[in-house]
Amino acid sequence: MKCIIISAGKIRNYERMKAYISPGDYIIAADGGLRYAERLGVKPDCILGDFDSLGYVPDAAEVYPSRKDDTDTMLAVRHGLDRGLTEFVILGGLGGRLDHTVANFSALEYLRSHGAKGWLADENTVVRICGAGDESKPVMRDSAYFSVFPFGCEYAVISLSGVEYPTERQRFDCAFPLGVSNHVTDYEKFHMIIHEGKALVIEWKED
Amino acid sequence: MKCIIISAGKIRNYERMKAYISPGDYIIAADGGLRYAERLGVKPDCILGDFDSLGYVPDAAEVYPSRKDDTDTMLAVRHGLDRGLTEFVILGGLGGRLDHTVANFSALEYLRSHGAKGWLADENTVVRICGAGDESKPVMRDSAYFSVFPFGCEYAVISLSGVEYPTERQRFDCAFPLGVSNHVTDYEKFHMIIHEGKALVIEWKED
Repeated sequence: MKCIIISAGKIRNYERMKAYISPGDYIIAADGGLRYAERLGVKPDCILGDFDSLGYVPDAAEVYPSRKDDTDTMLAVRHGLDRGLTEFVILGGLGGRLDHTVANFSALEYLRSHGAKGWLADENTVVRICGAGDESKPVMRDSAYFSVFPFGCEYAVISLSGVEYPTERQRFDCAFPLGVSNHVTDYEKFHMIIHEGKALVIEWKED
Repeated sequence: MKCIIISAGKIRNYERMKAYISPGDYIIAADGGLRYAERLGVKPDCILGDFDSLGYVPDAAEVYPSRKDDTDTMLAVRHGLDRGLTEFVILGGLGGRLDHTVANFSALEYLRSHGAKGWLADENTVVRICGAGDESKPVMRDSAYFSVFPFGCEYAVISLSGVEYPTERQRFDCAFPLGVSNHVTDYEKFHMIIHEGKALVIEWKED
């Protein structure tokens, strides 16, 4: 059972986003994400937020004050962790305000630091944070680009194989985007080892 | 004299983006950014890139191979630094592929680590990286949101005043988006001190 968090960022193609949702998943609509849940044809197990962006308070919602340290997505993350869930997919967490997108990178790291796995996903993109020992296989089998960036550290040391630009204990520094626009050339032989630091991994495919 | 880099991300409103460009600025069009330069009505002083995204090689362009460590935006950053320029505004560096946006955060840090100032700007957003001792005033006088995130470090320690949620030597951790969605309440009294680490600062205003 995955936890699907539906946030208020941007969803363009409902059919494609439905592919992330399986029967039995625990679904949380965060504030304005409720609109997307309706358009996705899913009934949330939980609706929460301050409802600033939705503009009204739905029935049976968990309502929080708008002055709070948590974003609505972070409220949803905490709620899912409290239920013991360990796999999270956040839809509608990209493509809105850039500060929310970057905040959602931190939500992924919050999940990771609490022993859970999380992705941010839109129609073309999957974002994860990987550290030493984390599962490294690409999420998409058909991605066009596989990019890595140091996250929460000055640099990460990463070996990559099965890609267009393989690396061997390469230093990826926060002051130079060396890890952008790599390509997975052999999914079966793909291997990523994070030797030091953590990596923000962004997979992207064409429409 | 500023260096304006026009990249191939997304530009929606040419009139608003023209406000970033002053007579005498040194203008670099990076690959597909040339199309935007034309629509902005500006004549680039330099056109460079691998021209994968533009699809043809313009006259008088500096042409680079597509297999290279630099993104086209990074080529432009290096070119501007080589000319001794110290103030950079990157237009068309946001809103395209998310991996490019994140790569451009590193381009800002590259500029900063080379003694130059840089912004990424779109119609609603200005992104900077600030470290200890860097100028901290908001770029926009009329921003709706002023968000800070640790960059290139596990956490940053930041004091903020003149804002809705003031902080005093607050730790902003990469695993929690505490710094998102603050507001500047008093531009004159606004003050940000970075005590430890570096911060990705994102200002955003409504359309």
